[in-house]
Amino acid sequence: MSQNLFHSATIIGVGLIGSSLARALKNKGIVEKIYGVSRSEENRRKLLDLNIVDEVFDNFKIPVQKSDLIFICTPVGAIENIIQEVIPFAKKGAIISDVGSVKGNISKIQVPDSIFFVPAHPVAGTEKSGPENGFAELFENRWCILTPLDNTNRDAVDIIFNIWSKVGMKVEIMSPEKHDIVMALMSHLPHLIAYTIVGTAADLEKQEQYDVLKYAAGGFRDFTRIAGSDPTMWRDIFLNNQDAVLECLQRFTEDLTSLQRAIRYKDSDVLVDWFKRTRIIRKELEELGQAQPENEKMLLKGKKI
Amino acid sequence: MSQNLFHSATIIGVGLIGSSLARALKNKGIVEKIYGVSRSEENRRKLLDLNIVDEVFDNFKIPVQKSDLIFICTPVGAIENIIQEVIPFAKKGAIISDVGSVKGNISKIQVPDSIFFVPAHPVAGTEKSGPENGFAELFENRWCILTPLDNTNRDAVDIIFNIWSKVGMKVEIMSPEKHDIVMALMSHLPHLIAYTIVGTAADLEKQEQYDVLKYAAGGFRDFTRIAGSDPTMWRDIFLNNQDAVLECLQRFTEDLTSLQRAIRYKDSDVLVDWFKRTRIIRKELEELGQAQPENEKMLLKGKKI
Repeated sequence: MSQNLFHSATIIGVGLIGSSLARALKNKGIVEKIYGVSRSEENRRKLLDLNIVDEVFDNFKIPVQKSDLIFICTPVGAIENIIQEVIPFAKKGAIISDVGSVKGNISKIQVPDSIFFVPAHPVAGTEKSGPENGFAELFENRWCILTPLDNTNRDAVDIIFNIWSKVGMKVEIMSPEKHDIVMALMSHLPHLIAYTIVGTAADLEKQEQYDVLKYAAGGFRDFTRIAGSDPTMWRDIFLNNQDAVLECLQRFTEDLTSLQRAIRYKDSDVLVDWFKRTRIIRKELEELGQAQPENEKMLLKGKKI
Repeated sequence: MSQNLFHSATIIGVGLIGSSLARALKNKGIVEKIYGVSRSEENRRKLLDLNIVDEVFDNFKIPVQKSDLIFICTPVGAIENIIQEVIPFAKKGAIISDVGSVKGNISKIQVPDSIFFVPAHPVAGTEKSGPENGFAELFENRWCILTPLDNTNRDAVDIIFNIWSKVGMKVEIMSPEKHDIVMALMSHLPHLIAYTIVGTAADLEKQEQYDVLKYAAGGFRDFTRIAGSDPTMWRDIFLNNQDAVLECLQRFTEDLTSLQRAIRYKDSDVLVDWFKRTRIIRKELEELGQAQPENEKMLLKGKKI
């Protein structure tokens, strides 16, 4: 057995992200024993059958008592309560972290001096759910954003920083507020819009009795992929990042209205100027190496998607 | 040499679509000689260097006189004029077709009895432009929609139908009006929205001096790909499909506003119901085999994207 950095970790909520983390922690020899906590019996069976974790539990009380690291990988809405419930059972010196997509409230949670909490958000995912869809390479070359408070223990922050680095991520530290507005624009608003338009199309199909969805073309097809994401996870994200999402939505609506006006009055220059500007942004992203989606990485691995 | 079905074809405008068509017509042995017409000298050189066409011209007058088939693959805004200018030079029995993304006005063009015009729209593409980015497999398993009028010659329609079928497309005949509303929703509106949000993000970055684009995440990343599409092509599409785009935009805005309201008032059920519905639609698309984008096909071919 390789020299592992940590003896044991508990992962609470072992879906797409949790199972990918478990695989990566194993692959990189970061943790020796991984305990998976899931309330679903079917999930627990999958975790053992696919050899993703070493032991499974339906409740975190037992495994967190013997874990150096505790990762909470549930939907955002559940994280705060789980942290509070985990605290009495965590052993001295344990580090609790999470993978939630909204950091404003969670980052403010205070823990006793004997244990540590480092709020984190590995910005990676696909529209699939469940442990069978996870893969260790999911995190490679993506951003992981840590949002510790000023009083968060620096050693604990360094440990979480190094774990995500070893897993392949580019790690940055940011304020929870900046994190939430950046994610509202980069991820939450695109998801909301994709969800919207796919529903709009389905209603047109029903109303006009056109079979419009059959002709799903470029553009819309990308949106359906996003709009296939987990409903509970995304409800939690929108409700927990309400302020930043509504603020970004307001800016977006103003911009969309101005382009709508340009189409109505055939103001060709407004359209071309806008489209040229966004094309340059796409080129910049390609140069930053940020342009390739996770699902293409899976394709390159020869994985069916 | 294999038995070709047609002696010669002229392709006017040999960019992503035109060059992919040229490659496919060659690969499938449909046409013996292909003439490429491009006003750009650089493009003409690329077409010869990459062996995409047999001869290049800077003007269509000479090649159309000796062509059985004439494909107009320019941006939508130029098609109508080109057809009118081609008519006097086309030989008796020649079939003119196009690949435009808007069909309302173009489909109404009347041609002399001695030649034929079959309006067509192969619904395929990537965000790249230029002949160097085309590939013969672009069309495989995608829809091609023909929008002939009642008085369009049926034999000519059958010929264009069969050509696109041989190239690998699923061909359907539809009214120009239905085509334009379906495409407004499936393609034009998603592009407009993607263009909008990428611009919104760039403005936030500038205004707040956040480097938000650096963190481009799932969702937004897909949007930047769409928003990297050719500006001239898309200006033409929006201005030529104005009515259908504005109509779909109105429906979309109503739906977005209702989800915005659900977020503001934390109406969890409205969100989850909507998201569950769109997830089912994504699953249906996957079952229809319509879910995989062209760029993934390129990846599977081992092509760098």
